[in-house]
Amino acid sequence: MTRPSRPLRLVVLSGGVGGARFTRGLLAHLDRTGLEADVTVVANTGDDMTLHGLRICPDLDTLMYTLAGVVHEEQGWGRRDETRRVADELAPYGVGWEWFTLGDRDIATHLARTSLLAAGATLSEATARLSARWDLPVTLRPMADEPVETHVELADGSLLHFEEWWVRTRAAEVPRRFVQVGVDEASAAPGVVEAITGADAVIVPPSNPVVSVGTILGVPGIAEALSATAAPVVGVSPLIGGAPVRGMADACLAAIGVAATAEAVAVDLRARHGRLDGWLVDDADAAAVAGLREAGIEALARPLWMTDLDATAAIAGAALGLAFELAAGLSQRG
Amino acid sequence: MTRPSRPLRLVVLSGGVGGARFTRGLLAHLDRTGLEADVTVVANTGDDMTLHGLRICPDLDTLMYTLAGVVHEEQGWGRRDETRRVADELAPYGVGWEWFTLGDRDIATHLARTSLLAAGATLSEATARLSARWDLPVTLRPMADEPVETHVELADGSLLHFEEWWVRTRAAEVPRRFVQVGVDEASAAPGVVEAITGADAVIVPPSNPVVSVGTILGVPGIAEALSATAAPVVGVSPLIGGAPVRGMADACLAAIGVAATAEAVAVDLRARHGRLDGWLVDDADAAAVAGLREAGIEALARPLWMTDLDATAAIAGAALGLAFELAAGLSQRG
Repeated sequence: MTRPSRPLRLVVLSGGVGGARFTRGLLAHLDRTGLEADVTVVANTGDDMTLHGLRICPDLDTLMYTLAGVVHEEQGWGRRDETRRVADELAPYGVGWEWFTLGDRDIATHLARTSLLAAGATLSEATARLSARWDLPVTLRPMADEPVETHVELADGSLLHFEEWWVRTRAAEVPRRFVQVGVDEASAAPGVVEAITGADAVIVPPSNPVVSVGTILGVPGIAEALSATAAPVVGVSPLIGGAPVRGMADACLAAIGVAATAEAVAVDLRARHGRLDGWLVDDADAAAVAGLREAGIEALARPLWMTDLDATAAIAGAALGLAFELAAGLSQRG
Repeated sequence: MTRPSRPLRLVVLSGGVGGARFTRGLLAHLDRTGLEADVTVVANTGDDMTLHGLRICPDLDTLMYTLAGVVHEEQGWGRRDETRRVADELAPYGVGWEWFTLGDRDIATHLARTSLLAAGATLSEATARLSARWDLPVTLRPMADEPVETHVELADGSLLHFEEWWVRTRAAEVPRRFVQVGVDEASAAPGVVEAITGADAVIVPPSNPVVSVGTILGVPGIAEALSATAAPVVGVSPLIGGAPVRGMADACLAAIGVAATAEAVAVDLRARHGRLDGWLVDDADAAAVAGLREAGIEALARPLWMTDLDATAAIAGAALGLAFELAAGLSQRG
């Protein structure tokens, strides 16, 4: 491949912690290899909610804090040096979701966003305004400007907001199904379709395949853009040895009847959303590579634990390398 | 007078700091004299606003914090032991009214209220829920459940929210007029008319006569209840020696063409709202007593500086004493 005369155009379809850490690794890889790239991160907003009147966007915030270098490192979300003055004072009023942690610095973000939205800004515009403070090294975009909220239907028919099922019940019960409230009225946010169709590579980080990546791909216009783009679509398995790298993706997969394996997830993503060209699996899942290739998905086994920035940069580099190989192959075939 | 066989029923029509301090003095007076009383405080909500999506009720909050014993004593409003973690983090986003102080503990109150309102509670219900935490020694009621916001029209025709004119510009310019946005659609909150018509005394504390007391009396139903009640209506002058005890009431009075004197304010209150039976003026304004009596308002000169709790209790005691004298006189005449 010749070095392109313009910056690479990369798109990452991201959930929260896993996607944010992966993207940080991608930026480190680009920096270390001297590759110039415009990176657009399309964030899942299906976990968004309105709490005490505040509009909260967990994945956008995790991405923003991580890429701004102010995230709580161990936790993976929220701000470092965080306090809970407001939450400690709120609890005695006996109002609200006490299981949902609201740090003071985090509340400031929610207040700023809520204020911008109340003044008529779209979520895209509010996200740009908030990101501007941090001078982010990527363009951060919500998947949609309209609210799309993931709700969980349990066996007894009760409906919970995804965050309540995830955070309060710790995904204890396998849901009967997920409901994307508002998805039919939503459309890809401005710039998202253009970013995907104009990309050199689209990368699916090791985010939750059902309620993060699946939610993004469910927004009208996004799967179509993915099918239409000339760019290779390459993903990183969020499952290693049959278990999620982080979080409770297995409960989500069980709800949609997909086995919690690196292979099944890739096959399902392609089946439901029409496009997946390459897939990184962990060395522990090397046995899945042959089957994936047979299924038409170019696969590669690599160490996939994002233990530190170096390891994560290497994973991102492998994903990018696979994308370039596929692009070269695609263009040769074309 | 014989001691009543039931607790006295007292109503206070209050703004923020002045009314809250007066009410605290009234409770101290009742406690010291062993008088049992059910005190209803009807709070001005004309200063309310929505900021960053939070519903903020400055006078209700000042009353609640003061009567709960958690107010910032020197400031007169807000919480003691307050911090500004959220506000310090909000400022760099460059969003909102930076001149309006939001303390962390205070934000918790706004979040709880906003949450209750979003869940369908009326402002009366939300106020009762918030007050329950503090086990307040009074029944605290908003003047109305519907939003009634005081806006200020300046000479150039521009409109400001009252709080912006008051806090940001420090009432620098005399307004052309005050506009009560929403007042025509509002009505007295549940329990307010009943409290006034069933009262043994209605007390007007030294609150701003235009934008606090005047706003309360402008709510449809409240002036009518005041005209109808058999209870004496007794007020305490918020002006001493031609200047406001606190705040910038003179700028408000200038806007409505009323002189900033203890006498003029009383006469205006009665003229505009139909009822004022008694009026305490400061010793410095003793010369006004004769004129007030001639105008049909029973007046008494007393020291009116609320310098400490003892002084304030004495003022409240004088107001109550004047009310009882008037009640006795009214019942004798009747």
